[in-house]
Amino acid sequence: MSSLLVVGTLGFDTIETPFGKAPKILGGSANYFSLAASLFSPVRCVGVVGEDFPQSHLDELKKRGIDVTGVERTGGKTFHWSGKYGTELHEAETLATHLNVLETFDPKLPESYRDSEYVFLGNLMPGVQQKVLSQVKNPKLIALDTMNFWITGMREQLIETIKKAHVLIINEGEARLLAKSHSIVETAKTILGWGVKHLVIKRGEYGAMLFDGKDFFSIPGLPLHDVKDPTGAGDSFAGGFMGYLASCGSDWSAPDNLRRAVVMGCCVASFTVQDFGPNALMACNTKLLQERFETFVKLTQFPKDGKI
Amino acid sequence: MSSLLVVGTLGFDTIETPFGKAPKILGGSANYFSLAASLFSPVRCVGVVGEDFPQSHLDELKKRGIDVTGVERTGGKTFHWSGKYGTELHEAETLATHLNVLETFDPKLPESYRDSEYVFLGNLMPGVQQKVLSQVKNPKLIALDTMNFWITGMREQLIETIKKAHVLIINEGEARLLAKSHSIVETAKTILGWGVKHLVIKRGEYGAMLFDGKDFFSIPGLPLHDVKDPTGAGDSFAGGFMGYLASCGSDWSAPDNLRRAVVMGCCVASFTVQDFGPNALMACNTKLLQERFETFVKLTQFPKDGKI
Repeated sequence: MSSLLVVGTLGFDTIETPFGKAPKILGGSANYFSLAASLFSPVRCVGVVGEDFPQSHLDELKKRGIDVTGVERTGGKTFHWSGKYGTELHEAETLATHLNVLETFDPKLPESYRDSEYVFLGNLMPGVQQKVLSQVKNPKLIALDTMNFWITGMREQLIETIKKAHVLIINEGEARLLAKSHSIVETAKTILGWGVKHLVIKRGEYGAMLFDGKDFFSIPGLPLHDVKDPTGAGDSFAGGFMGYLASCGSDWSAPDNLRRAVVMGCCVASFTVQDFGPNALMACNTKLLQERFETFVKLTQFPKDGKI
Repeated sequence: MSSLLVVGTLGFDTIETPFGKAPKILGGSANYFSLAASLFSPVRCVGVVGEDFPQSHLDELKKRGIDVTGVERTGGKTFHWSGKYGTELHEAETLATHLNVLETFDPKLPESYRDSEYVFLGNLMPGVQQKVLSQVKNPKLIALDTMNFWITGMREQLIETIKKAHVLIINEGEARLLAKSHSIVETAKTILGWGVKHLVIKRGEYGAMLFDGKDFFSIPGLPLHDVKDPTGAGDSFAGGFMGYLASCGSDWSAPDNLRRAVVMGCCVASFTVQDFGPNALMACNTKLLQERFETFVKLTQFPKDGKI
């Protein structure tokens, strides 16, 4: 049985998009990641919540094979983010960020988590990511995500953390910011030059790319009728990607497995955006995911044989 | 032998990008289209140039199987556009547009062009596009391109022209503007609702999409090391797309042919952007194109079989 550990946020989001408002719904990177990854593999979740976080949601995660032993509940209020998206649904304008219990988050892994083979360090302060990593005995695959805030504010520490990982999963704009280049190929060259083996670039509705040294893989996004709320899409992508790789076991680094993991990430994320918060993701199951994978195959296939 | 007709501009471009300046180089939609399409099929070119347009370039086109009988040379100066691109190379800022001989362009098809089976109406005033179309006897495939200027200024006339075509090839942003929607699926629904059978959406470095009723096809762009100048990429795409379809003959509307045509369009356009003006496109040949097609196949393939 594979053992996939994630550390990230669990919290509330208050979201406004052109399609509606959703006050104080369940959010957080570890939440989206765990729900997405659990479609492929058992998950061990690390995070912190306050007194106001509903036990029912933790129970819901447990039902899906997500171990929440590592979710600490402390006094005080849960992390709460408020954001607003414009008509293009690209980037959110942050209206408020209340770190609350996250401010003093000092993750300690339960003993039962320390043998985790697959590790995803969600978007957190690089120091916190490193602290989690140092508690895992012998990881086979380490991946991480990050954001502008750490790229501009803690660049050196972030690069040190990236150097310890096998895979960096990052938004396109943030990758360019990190590498200080406008060319995506130059960006990949710079980041892989730091020693991380695989770079996954998330491009929102434009899909995703995978760079491994000289090998490139790129896929478009699934065109969707009903995009309501992009919150959590990136973490759902990471969850689908890592969940699929964890299900591949020690063979995770085979190029075909990595490529299919990118496709799975896109397929899972395509559910997330179809409703507010994690609603659509929580309604997803293996059968629906298989159908969407088949839709994706149809979307992208073309005849490859013969001469021009 | 297939007969592919294009009407569009032939002119000069003065271009500035972060990678250099190119004063008064050969440009124009019919120029890029013809060069790209000639990699697959003979081309018949319709346009107008002034006294200052080099005969040597028309001779160069002829050498590549491009019939320039329909290129009218009149007194006055040739069309000249000047533009500047920012670091992201997305959209050009127009610095100057001198229509010159284009101002009174009233295309008359040579008798030898009137039996053309494949017709591409490059980005021109919708009335001019219709005038060309009315002179073709029995076209099998009509495609057109357009731009913001006509979408906002001559909307009704443009929609009438689109209704006469089989394929609309258009930039993503302009498609949304035309359909008045931010959703790409809604956009496709609206445009196809006017009766045009196939919609091709150009997404620059993000690739291209094809919508046929309920069938979607989407591909990413080729990640390139050396993008110097995006001018002409869209027309090169259209040339590759239409040239490939013309080479398929009466079977052009088979889904596999249309899909492969989109891939060919992207492959051809990937040459164009690698140098200023049409330099890199003119250096392309069937062998190089075949190699790039194979690179594209490698870029996009993933295992499609089996259960999740």
